[in-house]
This record gives sequence, structure tokens and C-alpha cells, in this order.
Amino acid sequence: MQSREQVTQAILVAKVQKGITWQEVSEAVGQSKEWTTAGCLGQMTFNSEQAGVVAKLFDLDENAEAWLQVVPYKGSFTEAVPSDPLLYRLYEMINVYGSTIKSLIHEEFGDGIMSAIDFSMDIQREENSAGDRVSIGLSGKFLPYKSY
Amino acid sequence: MQSREQVTQAILVAKVQKGITWQEVSEAVGQSKEWTTAGCLGQMTFNSEQAGVVAKLFDLDENAEAWLQVVPYKGSFTEAVPSDPLLYRLYEMINVYGSTIKSLIHEEFGDGIMSAIDFSMDIQREENSAGDRVSIGLSGKFLPYKSY
Amino acid sequence: MQSREQVTQAILVAKVQKGITWQEVSEAVGQSKEWTTAGCLGQMTFNSEQAGVVAKLFDLDENAEAWLQVVPYKGSFTEAVPSDPLLYRLYEMINVYGSTIKSLIHEEFGDGIMSAIDFSMDIQREENSAGDRVSIGLSGKFLPYKSY
Amino acid sequence: MQSREQVTQAILVAKVQKGITWQEVSEAVGQSKEWTTAGCLGQMTFNSEQAGVVAKLFDLDENAEAWLQVVPYKGSFTEAVPSDPLLYRLYEMINVYGSTIKSLIHEEFGDGIMSAIDFSMDIQREENSAGDRVSIGLSGKFLPYKSY
Amino acid sequence: MQSREQVTQAILVAKVQKGITWQEVSEAVGQSKEWTTAGCLGQMTFNSEQAGVVAKLFDLDENAEAWLQVVPYKGSFTEAVPSDPLLYRLYEMINVYGSTIKSLIHEEFGDGIMSAIDFSMDIQREENSAGDRVSIGLSGKFLPYKSY
Amino acid sequence: MQSREQVTQAILVAKVQKGITWQEVSEAVGQSKEWTTAGCLGQMTFNSEQAGVVAKLFDLDENAEAWLQVVPYKGSFTEAVPSDPLLYRLYEMINVYGSTIKSLIHEEFGDGIMSAIDFSMDIQREENSAGDRVSIGLSGKFLPYKSY
Amino acid sequence: MQSREQVTQAILVAKVQKGITWQEVSEAVGQSKEWTTAGCLGQMTFNSEQAGVVAKLFDLDENAEAWLQVVPYKGSFTEAVPSDPLLYRLYEMINVYGSTIKSLIHEEFGDGIMSAIDFSMDIQREENSAGDRVSIGLSGKFLPYKSY
Amino acid sequence: MQSREQVTQAILVAKVQKGITWQEVSEAVGQSKEWTTAGCLGQMTFNSEQAGVVAKLFDLDENAEAWLQVVPYKGSFTEAVPSDPLLYRLYEMINVYGSTIKSLIHEEFGDGIMSAIDFSMDIQREENSAGDRVSIGLSGKFLPYKSY
Amino acid sequence: MQSREQVTQAILVAKVQKGITWQEVSEAVGQSKEWTTAGCLGQMTFNSEQAGVVAKLFDLDENAEAWLQVVPYKGSFTEAVPSDPLLYRLYEMINVYGSTIKSLIHEEFGDGIMSAIDFSMDIQREENSAGDRVSIGLSGKFLPYKSY
Amino acid sequence: MQSREQVTQAILVAKVQKGITWQEVSEAVGQSKEWTTAGCLGQMTFNSEQAGVVAKLFDLDENAEAWLQVVPYKGSFTEAVPSDPLLYRLYEMINVYGSTIKSLIHEEFGDGIMSAIDFSMDIQREENSAGDRVSIGLSGKFLPYKSY
Repeated sequence: MQSREQVTQAILVAKVQKGITWQEVSEAVGQSKEWTTAGCLGQMTFNSEQAGVVAKLFDLDENAEAWLQVVPYKGSFTEAVPSDPLLYRLYEMINVYGSTIKSLIHEEFGDGIMSAIDFSMDIQREENSAGDRVSIGLSGKFLPYKSY
Repeated sequence: MQSREQVTQAILVAKVQKGITWQEVSEAVGQSKEWTTAGCLGQMTFNSEQAGVVAKLFDLDENAEAWLQVVPYKGSFTEAVPSDPLLYRLYEMINVYGSTIKSLIHEEFGDGIMSAIDFSMDIQREENSAGDRVSIGLSGKFLPYKSY
Repeated sequence: MQSREQVTQAILVAKVQKGITWQEVSEAVGQSKEWTTAGCLGQMTFNSEQAGVVAKLFDLDENAEAWLQVVPYKGSFTEAVPSDPLLYRLYEMINVYGSTIKSLIHEEFGDGIMSAIDFSMDIQREENSAGDRVSIGLSGKFLPYKSY
Repeated sequence: MQSREQVTQAILVAKVQKGITWQEVSEAVGQSKEWTTAGCLGQMTFNSEQAGVVAKLFDLDENAEAWLQVVPYKGSFTEAVPSDPLLYRLYEMINVYGSTIKSLIHEEFGDGIMSAIDFSMDIQREENSAGDRVSIGLSGKFLPYKSY
Repeated sequence: MQSREQVTQAILVAKVQKGITWQEVSEAVGQSKEWTTAGCLGQMTFNSEQAGVVAKLFDLDENAEAWLQVVPYKGSFTEAVPSDPLLYRLYEMINVYGSTIKSLIHEEFGDGIMSAIDFSMDIQREENSAGDRVSIGLSGKFLPYKSY
Repeated sequence: MQSREQVTQAILVAKVQKGITWQEVSEAVGQSKEWTTAGCLGQMTFNSEQAGVVAKLFDLDENAEAWLQVVPYKGSFTEAVPSDPLLYRLYEMINVYGSTIKSLIHEEFGDGIMSAIDFSMDIQREENSAGDRVSIGLSGKFLPYKSY
Repeated sequence: MQSREQVTQAILVAKVQKGITWQEVSEAVGQSKEWTTAGCLGQMTFNSEQAGVVAKLFDLDENAEAWLQVVPYKGSFTEAVPSDPLLYRLYEMINVYGSTIKSLIHEEFGDGIMSAIDFSMDIQREENSAGDRVSIGLSGKFLPYKSY
Repeated sequence: MQSREQVTQAILVAKVQKGITWQEVSEAVGQSKEWTTAGCLGQMTFNSEQAGVVAKLFDLDENAEAWLQVVPYKGSFTEAVPSDPLLYRLYEMINVYGSTIKSLIHEEFGDGIMSAIDFSMDIQREENSAGDRVSIGLSGKFLPYKSY
Repeated sequence: MQSREQVTQAILVAKVQKGITWQEVSEAVGQSKEWTTAGCLGQMTFNSEQAGVVAKLFDLDENAEAWLQVVPYKGSFTEAVPSDPLLYRLYEMINVYGSTIKSLIHEEFGDGIMSAIDFSMDIQREENSAGDRVSIGLSGKFLPYKSY
Repeated sequence: MQSREQVTQAILVAKVQKGITWQEVSEAVGQSKEWTTAGCLGQMTFNSEQAGVVAKLFDLDENAEAWLQVVPYKGSFTEAVPSDPLLYRLYEMINVYGSTIKSLIHEEFGDGIMSAIDFSMDIQREENSAGDRVSIGLSGKFLPYKSY
């Protein structure tokens, strides 16, 4: 295969054909389902052993296995503002509430950011009689700006 | 005042001059600090009583108090992709992990979205010896697409 | 086939070659013509039985049948503002009347949105001696913003 | 006033201050609430008599009354893709269902468009035990392309 | 062929190879050269008989002949503002004179538009001793906005 | 006044207040209504005498009269693709028919352009029992590319 | 070949493989190196004889030879603002000095433009002890706007 | 004055009111008309003496005189692609001929750029019986990329 | 003052009028000239004491002093790609060398980023007989992506 | 191969398959690792000897070896603002600190730029007990604007 994008595409096709779930992939890889899915979708880098497991699960060749260990060009939006309704709702949340989040983090921590690298994510179903809810937990290290 | 944007601007100026925190505003209004801040920043609509409290805290005139009860044009980004580092990190999180979130929600719930309207948010400091972390919890109702 | 887009393309080619109408497809699938067409054009997800019917009608292979059951990346515009005259007129309607619709819905319901998910659509010919008219009915659940 | 935009802004300020509803404006003007609201928001042109009624209701001066009779530069989005959640849902409806609407209109009527000029709109509350719904009816003349 | 764009491309290649002029195509089809060229370039829809003539002239297969009868996605610019000097001059004409055309049409007809659907076009050489001129005549029905 | 844009704005306000038509302005200036309107809207340059007539008609001061004689920054669209329905229809005409116009001019004249500078325009009402039509005539010198 | 772009691409590949210079091509064609290069890069149209010379030099087939005689879609930037440093410097020159050029041409000639069609260009090495310089001469006919 | 842009604006207003030509300004400043005009239009930095001359000619206050000596934020286009016909023609020249200029400079000099900083420009009227021409000479130092 | 942008603007005006250098400001503040300048230009947050020094140096009122202590909306480009030649060169460096930097950092450190928050910068003149050079040193902590 | 982009792609694939590091390539080529990597990624031009070494290392054919000696179209961002987190951090550094760098260079050197052509770069690991840092040194000749 000529690029990491082709490996991602091959994984998606194999997943449809074989009926594999991300839950199963993450169990085979031995990491969280959030991180493992991100890796399979071309956003994270696998180590040699993990790449072997993924390649075997999806019947990928050796070349693809090598690509899985190369740091990819990240970013999963094909447009600056995504048109897919689920992705757009995520974008809208931070558009509408972004200034609020910025104000509250600065009130609590001062000037700086919430890291998107030293970061983890947790997605859960929240049972609710008025209709189940999606719960997304985001946890990132606070990094302060310092004067020098 | 001629627009809701001017009311937001007036609140920000008064907040600097008076040294009020969002925590204090939310306690006076009697709602969460997340929702109250969003309202003051022009993203939510106050009822008559809440608008009175906000107007009094920030010394706003009657006209401003009326604007606080009008449904605003929402959206707090001034560009499609925000340049502020804190806001950009939020955008990057959903850009890098968006395809992962989409895949995992569809695996769990089927076709549909996580609502950005029937939605709440919770921001907390997470103490950590390697440096404190910001924890953001997002909870939204799952809305399925149905055939008809 | 390597992606849902290729399946959509294959359906369009087969439709031209076989002279099938969307009305016929919807009757075979047993759903409204609006929803069925959206599904064939890659915007909705078929269940296993529906996918079988569609695959048979358009002579698609098993792989394509699997793709029809995967939640697609939605959005049928290839540009933010469509250049096709029929699509542009729809865009213009909401551009010119959007502020009106927003004002009247908020006047009737308060702050919130009209759902585009819990939503149905009905397209009919309206006979008229001055030239027939197109009638489009849109029905979506009102979802209120709530304070918390 | 120097422009039609300033007249629109003045109407919005007066509406907040006086607590007038669009329903009341449309009754005074003697037209539908949809068309009247569009006119007040700078998208339609009033005749001399209608402009007089609107100017009186909102306490506008003679100059503003003249502007209300001038054909405006139309369009109520400030960006190609609106960020306000209610307006975005309308945009999303035609983005997701646009190819469907195009296919079904062409199947029924042949090549042409649904007019956005010879057009009317009707917005109603649809009572529903599972939560009330917004119903929007769009009616536009079909205009065929002809060869020559 | 997989799409109408491929049919347009095939017509262009065949036209170069066979040295056919648009004038000849329009005479064979029995319509104006303006409409016929637009049809061959993927902007108009042929009926069954016309499609047969076009397919024969350019040696297209049956599949292509079917595509010529399907309503295409219209629009012949590949960018919002075309870079080709001839196309750009057309764009510039309406950019520089657009506000003039809008003012003069509204002065003569009131609020409304000049239809781009109930429309015809005529392109002629205008002999002139100071250098020949291109003359383009545009004729479109005036469609008034009405109140309701 | 600080800029030509402010002069244009002042002309538009005075025109509303005084109820002057472009036809009347062009008769006073002694040029066509098309060119005169373009000049008043900031797209053309008046000579000293013409500027005097325009300034008197609209009660402009000496400074404005000077600006009318300065070559302006031209272009009357505020966006690359105009949202106003009348202007958009003009844009759509050249988008849909642009490739046709390009092909037919090249077939008749060879490589080159139709000038937008050595150019005139004529707008007329075309009476028609099925509804009056707008007729726009464009005439521009053909300028050939030459090798050297 | 299916398009003029493919012919341009084939010329570039052959030029690398055969080590031909543009100077040699222009001598064979019998035109300036500036015009000839523009023609080979898909911006100008060759006559029958010139196309034959070019096709022979680069070993192109008959089909390609025909394409060289068709008026191309012009424009050699792949983005509105080019990222290549040499091309960007050209863009920057007219961005920084554009208002100056506009002012000085209008001061000398009045309202109008410098033609980009009745135009020629001359690129020379300017020897200089402080480092050689590139000298680009642009010559275009002045075309005045006239009133009518 | 609060910014260099306001100084430029003030110069333009004074130039109209006083009827000063750029030629006269450049003679007073003692530099070429090209460089002097660029400086007055906010693209170049004057030294103390030159700023004094300019300020006196246009009756600017001391504050403006100080701004003329501050390095400005350069760039005279208000859009990435300018809509003014004269500026657009300059843009089109480098769009159409850019790939040609790049190829010929690299053929002559190797990899590198033509400097837009160590650069001068010369604009002249070229008398011609077929209509006078504008001649623009650009001279920039060649800067080679080197390996290291 | 109503916003941090107005404070920045006031500092720039005062700096011109008083002839203060950034070097002097940084000595008064007691931090590096890089960080201090960034703070004055609205990119960093001063503490109470530093804000007092800055306010005094530039004669700012108490309100401005308060704004200097509020975390600003960061970003100093007014366009995604800056038009100013000095800023553009910085952008070009990372455009041309960005893929190189990415490859070399990943080769040395693995997957992760170079922090733009835990970051410092050092700008120096580098004397050189062939013309002095600007030397910019960037130092940022490496933050690795981790699996979880 | 048909283009330099395909050569770059082939190098990346071969690098993964053969497990070669950029360090090794630069040693074989005999230039710095920064410049060599930029050359392999299609941003710099190799001479004949260097191209031979690169072609041999990556098993490229003769045609590719020729392409390596042709000046490429430079620019390694696929979007104006890169989405990859490492590249974005570089972009953010110059967005946030750009106005600072501009101010400090002008304070030290006067009007002009830091060259991105007469330029070199040095990337090093900086050991640090709080986590290693990336150090990037940029060195470019200062080029002054001169009056003429």
C-alpha cells in the first residue's frame, strides 16, 4: 500500500466484510477501545506488537503492518467544518460553549491550555428513562503559559 | 444597547472592573456555573428573574435586561477554526478523535446523533501529582434516525 | 467496493441502465419514497432486510450489501453553497427566510431548535391552473434548551 | 438612517423595548406573519401603506419609512454556513436531504426548479404527545427548463 | 460510463478527434447552438431522440445515451470565481455592473428577479471596423415577489 | 467625506429621501442610464462637469464632488458569490452557461476574450403576454491572444 | 489523452526524460521563449504547424497534437494564493505594490486597465556585481473605460 | 491618529482636496514616484526628513508624522483575489504566466527566487500608434537556495 | 476601554508618540523582551505588578490596567495566511520545511508534539560579513502521545 | 513516474519498507539532515550526484532520478492551516508570536525581512530533567527594503 490512508481504508473494508467490532479489536490489542479505534482510523501510532495484532485481525500485508508503525498525518475532518450531523454536533458544542469553557478554565487555572496530547477520552452509555444518553469524558493535563 | 453582542461586551467590561467571578454569578442566578457563564456570554436565554439578577450584578440598564431575555444568535467562534490556543485544542480534540467518537457511538447506539441541545456540561479540576488535569464531562441525549 | 460513495455511484449507474424509479424502490423496501431515496443516496442506514432488497434491485454484490448497513458519513453537498440551480433555490429559501423562521419558532416555542434527526419530509405535486407547484412539508420535533 | 440594515436593527431594538410580537405586526399590516416578519427583517419590500403601519408601530422616522419601500439586498446569513443551531439545522436538512429532494422533483416534474420567488411558507405548531413538533410547509411554483 | 461528467469528457475528446463544430451538432439536434452546446457540456437534459443524435455523432455507447437523458448536477465553474480569462470577464461584468442591473430592474419592475430558468441566450458576432465585437443577448422572464 | 464608498452611500440615502429615479439622473448627466447608474454606485469615473450635475442633484458637498472624479476601486459584490436573489441569478447564468459561452466564442473568434472594459450594456423591458421579460444586451470588443 | 492537462503533464515528463530546454523548444517553434513556454504549459493555443513541431519534439501522439490546438481553460495557480516561494514573490509584488501601480496608471492614463490579453512579457538576466538580477518587462495596451 | 491605515486614508482625502499628483510628491521627497507612492499608501517606511516633507504637503499632524516612520503591516489587497479590474489584470498576468516565469527563471538561474525586497519597479507610458501601452519593468535580485 | 484589542492599540499609539523601545519596556517589567512584547501586543497575561508598570509607562488608565491581567483571546494574524512580507516569510518557512521538521522530530522522539505553551523564544542579531542574519531560537517541551 | 509528488511518495514507501532513517540518508548524501530530508520530501533540488545517491538508496528508477534534479513546486501544507497537531503547533507559534517577532526584528534592523531562502535550520534534542525539549534554530539573512 502506498499510504497510511490506504491502510485505514483497507481496515474499514475488512471490518465490514468480517463483521468485527472495535470492542473486539481493542481487546485483542490490549488497550482502551477509544485509543485503539483512533489508531485503526489513522490517528495514532501502533508499536510493533500492536501492529502485528491489527494486521492479523484485518488480514493486512507486511507493508501495511509497517505503515501502522509510522507516525501519521493526523486530522479526521475532510472539511474545516464537518457536514456529518454527528460530527457537526460535536463541533457545535465547542462553538456554542467554547467561550464558556475558556472562561471557566482560566478562572480556575489562570492562563494556559488543556492539553490535547497528554489526554484521554472515555465514551459511555448513560441509561436514562427519558432516553439513553451519550456520556463523553475528556481529561487533559493543564499546561500553563509562563513568563521568562 | 443596540444588540445582544453589546450586552455581552458590557458584561465583560463590568466583570473586569468589578472583579466578579463566574462562580459568584452562577450562585446569584441559582444555576450551574457552566450554563450561567454561557448565558452571560450570549449563548443562552435568561428568564425574567434571572435577567434581573444579572443586570443588577453588572449594573446594566433596563434595555440590556430586555435583551438578556431574547433568544440570541448563537456561536462563539469568530472564525470557522478558532486561533486561540485553548479553543483550538478543543477543536483539535474533535478533529483528531471525531471519527473515533462517531464509530464508537454508532457501534453502541446505531445511526443517530448525540444531542447538543438536550445537553449538559461539567468542568472540574482533577488533582494529579504529575500536574493537575482539566476534566470536561459532556452528556447529551442520543437521538436515533428512524425510517418512515 | 471500497466505500459507501462507490455503492451510491453504482446505484445511480444501475438506475439509469435499468430505468428503475425511486417510487418503485420505496415500494419494494416498504418505506416512504423520501426516506428510501435518502438511503440509496448514502444518507441513511438500511437494516439487513432492506439492504437485501436494494442490493437485489440494483444487482449489487454482497460487499455492497454490507456497506448499506454501515452508518454513512452524511452530507450531500459537494460545496458549502451548492451550484446546482434546484439545490441553490433550497439554500436561498433558508438564507432569505432563515431569520424569519428563527424568529417565529422562538416566538411560539421559546429557545431551542427544530430537530433535523427526529424529522420527516413529504414532497407532493400541488396542481394549480397557473402552473403546478412543488409542496414540501417538513416536520421536526421541537427540542428546548434547558438551564441546569 | 443610512441603510436598510440600520432600519432592521432599529425594529429589533424597538421590538424588545415595546414587547411587540410578530403576530401583532402581521395583523396590523394585514398580511401573513411569515411575509410580514421577512419584511421587517429586511428581506421583503413594503408598499407605502404597509410601511406607514410598520413605522408607526415601531416609532420609526420618515426616512426609515422610505427605506422600507426600497428593494433590499436580500440574504439573512452572515456566513455561508450559519453557526446558530436553529439555522444550522435548516441548512443541514437541505444538505442531508438535498440530493433526495432533487431526485424526487426531477422524477415527478422533469428538469427545472422549485421557485424561491413565486413561493410561500407556512409555519405551525403540531401538537404531539411525545413532544410538540414544528411543521414548515414550503410551496413554490415548478419552473421547467425548456429547449429553444 | 459512471457519471454524466465522464460523458461530457468523452464528448470533448471526440469533438477534438473528429473536428466537429457545435454549429453542426445543433443543426443535427434541431435546437439553437446555445442550448445544444449547454446540453453537451452537461448543463441541460436531452430527450430520447436528441440523446440518440448526440450519441451517434460522438460515437457514445448506450449507457452514455441514457446518462444524457438524466437531469445533471449543473454548474460549469470549478471554482467560485473562475480563473480562465474569458470566464472571468463574464464574472467581472456582473461584479462591476451587478448593482447597476439590480437598481435598474427594480426601478422598472419592482421587487423580484430575472429568471435564469425561463431564460434564453443568443451569441452573435457584431462586425465593427474598430475590431469585431461579441454580442450576448440575455432574455429572462421577470418573476415578482408577492406578499401573502 | 472620507472615501468614495461614503459618497455612494450618501447618494443612496438622498435618492430615497428625494425620490429621484436613475432615469432622471441619466438625463441630467446626458449619458445612458446604464453608465450613469454605474457611476453613481461607485463603479465609473465622472468628468468635472458630470460630477457637478450629480453633486447638485443629490445635494453633495465639494469634497464629494472631487471624489466622483477619482477612479474608484471597482467591484459591487460584497461576497465572491452574492446572496441577493437577483444578483445570484446573474451569477448562476454565467456559472451554468459559462462553458457554453466560452466554447461558442472560441469557435467563432479563436483564442481571446470579450472585453469587459471596451464594453456597453443595454437593459430593456420586453413585453410578453406570458409575463414581461427582462432583456439584457452585452456588447464587448473581441480581444485576441497573439503569439510573439 | 483525455484532457489538455494530461498533455501538459506528458510534456513535462518528456522534457525531464529528454533534457530539452524551453529555449530549444521556442527556437523550433519560431516564437519567443515566453509565449512558447506558456503554450506548452497549457496557457496558450498553438496553430496546426506549431502543434506539429511541439508534438514531434516531445513524442506526443496525434490526439495530443489536436488538444494543443484547442483553446485551453487558463490559469496556472492551483490555489488562489500560490504556496511556491517563487510564485508567491510575484503575488506579493502585486499585493504590496498593486495600489501604487493602480494610482500611477490612473494618474497617467485616466480610468481603464492595462490589458492582460494584448500583452507581451520579456524575462532577462541582468548582470550585477552585487549578485545577478532577474528583469521582467511587462507590456500591455491601455484600454480606457468610456461613457456611452 | 490611531493607526497607519488612518494616515493613508488622510493622505488620500487630502490629495483629492488639494489636487496634488504623486509625481509632485515624489519630487518633493526626492525619490522615485514608484517608491514614494508606495510609501504614501502605507507600504514603505519614511525616514524622519521624508516624513516631514510628506506631512507638510498633506497637512498631517505630528502624530501622523510619527506613524510614517513606523514599519507598517504591508499588503494592499483587501481580498486574496482583488475584484478591481486593473488589479485583477495584474493578478491574472501572474496566474496565467506564473508557471512560465517559474520555468524560465529556473532554466536560467537554477533553484531560488526573484527577490520582492531587493527590488525596484518602473512604470512608463509606451507610445504606440495602435493605442498607447503601459510598460512595467520589474527588477529583483536572484536569491539561490543553497544546500548546507 | 471596551476590550483588550483597544488596550493593545493604545499601547502602539503611545509607543510611537513617546518613542519607547520594547527593550526598555522589558527592562522595566523585568522579563525577556520576547515575552514582554508578546504581552503588550495582547498575547500574554500580566500579573498585577507587571500590569502596573506597563500602564504607567504608556499612560494607560485603571481600566486598561485591569484588562492587562485578563487572559486574552490569542492570535496575531488577521488572515489565515498573513500578507505582510516579514510574517509571510515565517509562514513560508514552516510551510516549506514543516514536513521536514515533523519527520525529524518523530525520528528522534516518536509520536507527539513540540509544545507551543511550555515554550520560549530568543531573537538575536548574528553578525556576518556577507550581511547580518536574524537568528531565532525556539525551545519547546516534547509531549508524547501515549496509549491507554 | 509522472511527477515529483510520485517520487516523494515512492521515497516514503521505500523508507517504511527498508527501515532507513533520514540521518542515514543525509550521511550518504553528505549534507545536513535538515536539508536532505527537505529534498527527499520534494522541497529542495538535488544535483546530479546527490540524486544518484538518493535513487540508489531508495531503489528508484532513472526517471525518478531525473525528477529529483528538477526544481519542484514547493509547499508541504495540504491546507492553508495544517490540521496535524505537530504542524499546527508550529503554525500557532508564529500566529501567537508573529507580531512580536515582527516588532523586535524591525526594532533591531529597520524595515525589511528575514530571508526564507538564504536560510538554514537546525533541530536538536535538548536534555531536560523536567522532560526533554525540542530546540529549533532558524537563521536567515536580513534583507532591507531600500528607497530608490
